[in-house]
Amino acid sequence: MNLTKDQELVCGINPVNEIISMRPGSVTTLFFEENKGARIQELNQLAEKHNIEVVAQNSSFFSKNFDEMNHQGVAIICHKRLEENENFLESLIEKENLLLLILEHITDPHNVGACIRSAAAAGVDAVIVPKNRSCHLTPTVRKISSGGAELIPFIVVTNIVRTINKLQSAGVMVYGTDTEASKFHNKVTYGEKSALIIGSEDKGLKRLTLEKCDEIIRINMPGRIESLNASVTTGIMLFQMINQQ
Amino acid sequence: MNLTKDQELVCGINPVNEIISMRPGSVTTLFFEENKGARIQELNQLAEKHNIEVVAQNSSFFSKNFDEMNHQGVAIICHKRLEENENFLESLIEKENLLLLILEHITDPHNVGACIRSAAAAGVDAVIVPKNRSCHLTPTVRKISSGGAELIPFIVVTNIVRTINKLQSAGVMVYGTDTEASKFHNKVTYGEKSALIIGSEDKGLKRLTLEKCDEIIRINMPGRIESLNASVTTGIMLFQMINQQ
Repeated sequence: MNLTKDQELVCGINPVNEIISMRPGSVTTLFFEENKGARIQELNQLAEKHNIEVVAQNSSFFSKNFDEMNHQGVAIICHKRLEENENFLESLIEKENLLLLILEHITDPHNVGACIRSAAAAGVDAVIVPKNRSCHLTPTVRKISSGGAELIPFIVVTNIVRTINKLQSAGVMVYGTDTEASKFHNKVTYGEKSALIIGSEDKGLKRLTLEKCDEIIRINMPGRIESLNASVTTGIMLFQMINQQ
Repeated sequence: MNLTKDQELVCGINPVNEIISMRPGSVTTLFFEENKGARIQELNQLAEKHNIEVVAQNSSFFSKNFDEMNHQGVAIICHKRLEENENFLESLIEKENLLLLILEHITDPHNVGACIRSAAAAGVDAVIVPKNRSCHLTPTVRKISSGGAELIPFIVVTNIVRTINKLQSAGVMVYGTDTEASKFHNKVTYGEKSALIIGSEDKGLKRLTLEKCDEIIRINMPGRIESLNASVTTGIMLFQMINQQ
């Protein structure tokens, strides 16, 4: 199978359904494994309705292309979703309920991909990263995100502090994470419009960024090390925030 | 720097402190970056007390060996902690408070390493894996665990169902995870003696394993995909469990 550099493979019932429903024109082919149940049949019909090519494949096709991923016997070839620029924020921040994830200087594509995946599962409205010294939507990020990168806007901004100012002017509460914070993440009442900022694992958030935050929080770690993977920290915090909302 | 196959490099103030305090005989060398504060000085003194070689290094040594990890300017060479066998469980399960993490068939070393790291941060008493079709303590797992693999017992058992029986006889409540579960992870009152079982991302827990669990739980995901990385699921569930205890 040959993909152009603007295309990618996305697997799984929910991501496939979302992408065909939201932007069918970007999908060229649907692959499915036979006898995998009614939901796969419905996706086939949806694809045919939009004149998308539908191709049956055996299970080895799926295990070869989606090693250890929960592919559920369905996948598509689609055009990659592009990164958004700062203008995309303007309309978004007027929403009544808003949850944003800002990744300040995370450079490991596995971490960024896993953060996007968690953000998509938590219903985050957009992921924001700075233009410099951050990992953007690379092929590895897209793959690790398990379809999340196709579903969630990925906004690249020039200056994080200026973006925080803009968010705060629109009533968004900005929560920074720091290992020295005095407040635990599960003792905070989060705003209906919230943004969570995660910094790099080794250096944390920049001082200027921390100073702009409305609250600085951390996860209480009673174990013998105080150290979590950045994508695990992100998942724990996001799911705490949505459980309270 | 030459390491034997039984040795590894571990960085960070807490892991280094724990390993020197608990098994100083396994540590041959401590590396530190100068002018990094009082806690590094205390570790130097602790190392010297135990006749461990102490070597000053510049910051490039640390960035070269611990790319993107929060090394905090200190590291050791130590003998690797070995895997434990089933006998190790016998005394452990008599504890009054107990939190165990069972990884049923997770084969990706990055996921297993990140799970061990989260388990060490959450204060989990031991990580348990089956002998077959699971990733064990490989070099990648140890590295990704960021010192966690040195601090937390890693128990390899022959049969997960038999292990669950043994745990339940000792009063341990066993919580299985399944995407079809009707109970959300944050609506459960966890036992003082608890074990969390995580299955593979693509196939989940085995049917026989699920049938043995006291409760089956899942994370509520309101977003457009219902899919989290296995190590993120583990982190979210473990920190929910310890926050309730």
